[in-house]
Amino acid sequence: MSETPRTAGPVAPTARALAALRPLPADAVRLEPTGLLGGWQARNAAATLPHCVDRLDTAGNLANLRRLAGDAPGAFTGMWFADSDVHKTLEAAAWELGRAGTLSPRLSGFLADTAALLEKVQDPDGYLDSYYQGEHRDRQWTELHFSHELYCAGHLIQAAVAAARAPGGDPDVGPQLVAVARRFADLLVHRYGPDGTAAVCGHPEIETALVELYRLTGHAPYLQLAARFVELRGHGLIAPDKLGPRYYQDHEPVRTAGEVTGHVVRQVYLLAGVVDVAVETHDTELLAAAERLWDSALAGKTHLTGGQGSRHRDESFGDPYELPPDRAYAETCAAIGSFQWAWRLLLATGRARYADEMERLLLNGIAGSTGLEGTTFFYSNPLQLRTGHDGSHEDAPSQRLGWYSCACCPPNLARLLASLHAYLATGDETGLQLHLYATGTFGPVTVATRYPWDEEITITVREDHPAQWTLALRVPSWCAEARLTVNGEPQPATAEDGYLRLTRAWRGGDQVVLTLAMPPRLVFPHPRIDAVRGTAALTRGPLVYCLEHADVSRPGVEFEDLALDPDAPVEVAHREDAIAPVLLLAPVVTRPAGPGPLYRTGPQDGSPATPAGPVPAIPYFLWANRAAGPMRVWIPTAPRKV
Amino acid sequence: MSETPRTAGPVAPTARALAALRPLPADAVRLEPTGLLGGWQARNAAATLPHCVDRLDTAGNLANLRRLAGDAPGAFTGMWFADSDVHKTLEAAAWELGRAGTLSPRLSGFLADTAALLEKVQDPDGYLDSYYQGEHRDRQWTELHFSHELYCAGHLIQAAVAAARAPGGDPDVGPQLVAVARRFADLLVHRYGPDGTAAVCGHPEIETALVELYRLTGHAPYLQLAARFVELRGHGLIAPDKLGPRYYQDHEPVRTAGEVTGHVVRQVYLLAGVVDVAVETHDTELLAAAERLWDSALAGKTHLTGGQGSRHRDESFGDPYELPPDRAYAETCAAIGSFQWAWRLLLATGRARYADEMERLLLNGIAGSTGLEGTTFFYSNPLQLRTGHDGSHEDAPSQRLGWYSCACCPPNLARLLASLHAYLATGDETGLQLHLYATGTFGPVTVATRYPWDEEITITVREDHPAQWTLALRVPSWCAEARLTVNGEPQPATAEDGYLRLTRAWRGGDQVVLTLAMPPRLVFPHPRIDAVRGTAALTRGPLVYCLEHADVSRPGVEFEDLALDPDAPVEVAHREDAIAPVLLLAPVVTRPAGPGPLYRTGPQDGSPATPAGPVPAIPYFLWANRAAGPMRVWIPTAPRKV
Repeated sequence: MSETPRTAGPVAPTARALAALRPLPADAVRLEPTGLLGGWQARNAAATLPHCVDRLDTAGNLANLRRLAGDAPGAFTGMWFADSDVHKTLEAAAWELGRAGTLSPRLSGFLADTAALLEKVQDPDGYLDSYYQGEHRDRQWTELHFSHELYCAGHLIQAAVAAARAPGGDPDVGPQLVAVARRFADLLVHRYGPDGTAAVCGHPEIETALVELYRLTGHAPYLQLAARFVELRGHGLIAPDKLGPRYYQDHEPVRTAGEVTGHVVRQVYLLAGVVDVAVETHDTELLAAAERLWDSALAGKTHLTGGQGSRHRDESFGDPYELPPDRAYAETCAAIGSFQWAWRLLLATGRARYADEMERLLLNGIAGSTGLEGTTFFYSNPLQLRTGHDGSHEDAPSQRLGWYSCACCPPNLARLLASLHAYLATGDETGLQLHLYATGTFGPVTVATRYPWDEEITITVREDHPAQWTLALRVPSWCAEARLTVNGEPQPATAEDGYLRLTRAWRGGDQVVLTLAMPPRLVFPHPRIDAVRGTAALTRGPLVYCLEHADVSRPGVEFEDLALDPDAPVEVAHREDAIAPVLLLAPVVTRPAGPGPLYRTGPQDGSPATPAGPVPAIPYFLWANRAAGPMRVWIPTAPRKV
Repeated sequence: MSETPRTAGPVAPTARALAALRPLPADAVRLEPTGLLGGWQARNAAATLPHCVDRLDTAGNLANLRRLAGDAPGAFTGMWFADSDVHKTLEAAAWELGRAGTLSPRLSGFLADTAALLEKVQDPDGYLDSYYQGEHRDRQWTELHFSHELYCAGHLIQAAVAAARAPGGDPDVGPQLVAVARRFADLLVHRYGPDGTAAVCGHPEIETALVELYRLTGHAPYLQLAARFVELRGHGLIAPDKLGPRYYQDHEPVRTAGEVTGHVVRQVYLLAGVVDVAVETHDTELLAAAERLWDSALAGKTHLTGGQGSRHRDESFGDPYELPPDRAYAETCAAIGSFQWAWRLLLATGRARYADEMERLLLNGIAGSTGLEGTTFFYSNPLQLRTGHDGSHEDAPSQRLGWYSCACCPPNLARLLASLHAYLATGDETGLQLHLYATGTFGPVTVATRYPWDEEITITVREDHPAQWTLALRVPSWCAEARLTVNGEPQPATAEDGYLRLTRAWRGGDQVVLTLAMPPRLVFPHPRIDAVRGTAALTRGPLVYCLEHADVSRPGVEFEDLALDPDAPVEVAHREDAIAPVLLLAPVVTRPAGPGPLYRTGPQDGSPATPAGPVPAIPYFLWANRAAGPMRVWIPTAPRKV
């Protein structure tokens, strides 16, 4: 029945799909744990994923399902969409099984037991949602704007697709989960298909899931239903409420919408599904809409870390140029969704800018969400923590927490990291494209690099190839100087459309060394971003850096008084004993401004600047791994010397 | 039974209370509608108050009560604390009756009918809350952290106190409402007094209400219960929830708390009650705590308009120096509560700074909440509306709305405005103190002024006085140059502790002219307010000004590209045909910054500045009375010329 190989990763367009690039088979890619990304993936397997399974137990998510089977006492606990955390963790375990070929007994048991549990508690008609199957049966199907029923169904489907594409467990739960998912999907086709009710879920997710299920099964009604949900959105089918129709992206059809808006996770999940529908239905207008909305996001609604979302109240984008560093919402799930949206656009169009954004997101917005130990997480990812911050509640904690009352993010991280290797390289009829650089094996080549700490990336061809093919290497947009050698011989290194392309009849052992020069850079914001006027940020290569209190603890220097001397050079410090192997030494001055009137006549920023020596800046993604305290990405700039 | 005169206004400390200053009898003050404040009071009577009565009908607040009497069909509608809007409107009508001596038949009927209705539906034990008396009887008293039961009780009590202090209706509903209020208050004493449960309401308000009821009746248990509620707060009696204990100010006792925090309205209402308790119980430690918390608010958590609150999510203060202009919450009720807190501190201490803050709040943060026509309102009062703002939902509309699903603010404005005359002047054994200047009669003097448009305030003594007394005139902290004449003779005008004091045996017709010089001023923010770094605001006298799109509509000039030339003078323009009689002409340049990358290497604010001619700035409180569009108080400053 499969349309796509069982060893595919997440997102496996059919052979008929519009696609500039094709994912590599999942088993053609392997990350080494010695590299940064491979290390994250290993940590995910060893720490994050088991932690998620633990918390599904202690937080009650699994009990919500077990009680439907008569195996657990008590009432439903947690968010009404708590099932989705089970499904996402299941998806993560399936990808991990596919990646590693084996699971710990604990994870293996979780996978098998949960698959069996879901099968057991599923209604005869295919319905499965423990909140509505429990005390709230009377409200089943009655409140789609709010219920997350199709959102949960989508994550169930994605778990099944993962289990089918990454088989190998004992027992292999793929067929079992696919059967459960199909029963639910068939019910949805019956209820909401062309002969059913015209409705949309308040929280998109089902769209991409249905396309993936179509890709797995070849069953066209799933694709058609996904397309229908996309088309029905934006016509006011969601009853007006105090959040407004934009919150749900129900204010305007996606085909004509001019800007990303509303709840960020909903928006980016929807647009991932939109691209999936567009490429499978050859709907170029829809694909163009997804690219146009991408433009709008990057033009005015994205933080320097790639994070999106500026409002805690409704977890929304906010207005254009409304990008506060302290109240940046930048939800982890939004970054993951945006990463998945970008990957789909990259596959569809082959445009390097989507890979640029994936890199920025992965190494900053996403990476920063997880603690060094892999078991603590940020839900929102601010770019500033102010002195005196009240971190006493989970909406804006000063440090990562082990779990959240709305725990969507940790399992989302687990499923992304377990399948991360699938998002880095592609193939097409011309050859191999390396988009994100990490130590590991990518089809016909191996890559060895300490990127993003070091500038060099060494690519070795694994075996002889009789025919020519092209190795395409992405030169990130931040990189002004790329250098290239093949077997030690310097080569021209002019990128076209963001890629260096080398066409040869490659021989085993051929070695390509790409050097991406990474001088420290000061980055300045667009003048319309009011919240960071008069500041600059430190970056090196793809990494955003930040100042953190732990590196500024010296007598007489107050964190909030620091300003950057824009005329002095920023030095690089290699320190293997520090929190990061590469620090940036920020040339700062201190301009004391103690307590005083908040507002007064005459400029208040004129206090004398005293050099405060260079202060180490650390990669943003490593902040909050030491004692809680202030941090800032955007650093006020001292006036330039005349 | 009265401890305080029936013609007292809101806040009437007993003769035994700690008090540096005493309110004037309410009937000793009258505002003339020709003045700015008197005009607002007249508009309140003619438009706002009738509008509130209308909306209580159409939004269902009155029906919620009527159905308990069997006089209305349907289910409870609106917020669970919807009764409080009825009580506040009732209080407003009572003050209006006291002020004007008469009410329209509509308002008179509302007052009498509602008083009768409340009496009718009150439980035999004194309980009165239509949400809990209706479908939710099983939850009565069970969820004080959430229920607003004591909050609603507090507003009921305040309505009764107003009706008792401002009698004169036909029928006089004062005794009827006081009886209703006392039955409820007695029940509270029984349940939560020294022999009852130790508990606090999630939303303070009952504290100040009980003290006022004590002041009216002399019944000490009311004061004792208020004091008990103050003492019990900060001991974790409110069960932990996701908003955290600071939201409820239950994290630390008020006696030791170091800074204002959490939900702003709750905090300032609590602190108003704290001052009431402190002065009536001679608790100087508690009074000192209220002053210390005041310091903390002004030191880091108050917007330029006097508004407080920086977060929409939980309507909270936010961290120190977290003062975003665009997402300023600055709820109208918070400004009203802060005004009431300031008045209590002024009475207790006589310190001019509290009057300074009342003036700033009244003429900016509070005044801006109401549309020119008096029937539209802002709930939150931002200091910036950005181009492209999504004003489609009531959380952040682009213009004032007629009502809100949480409609706490309009009736709060109505009750404040109907009693506004009581907040402007005080007396003590030495004489009369004028704190806020408005055309009208204040005890022994009349005041005529176009303040704050004009600089001159003319005070005329109404009749001969055999004994000497002191006329104290506040010189606002913003004023660097005050001038004074008595009967045309220049006098020394050196303020002591914020007041000019003139001691004489005043004769009828004696005329004092106070001139408060009002040159336009550029105000700069403390450098730690990240959100407005690199900007300045225009002010004149007590008024904050803003740029609004309607004044910047000329070809080639984009609102968001404007910057202020800090070296050029700001001119004053008197324009009787404009939206305000006094405009400020802001010297601006335009520095075009069209769409482009959000972040890039190299400063982005260096585009050439072109003079864009002076642009009229209008008083902040008058914004959004023309077509919807961008506005800003804080204007980026162009680099100074060297």
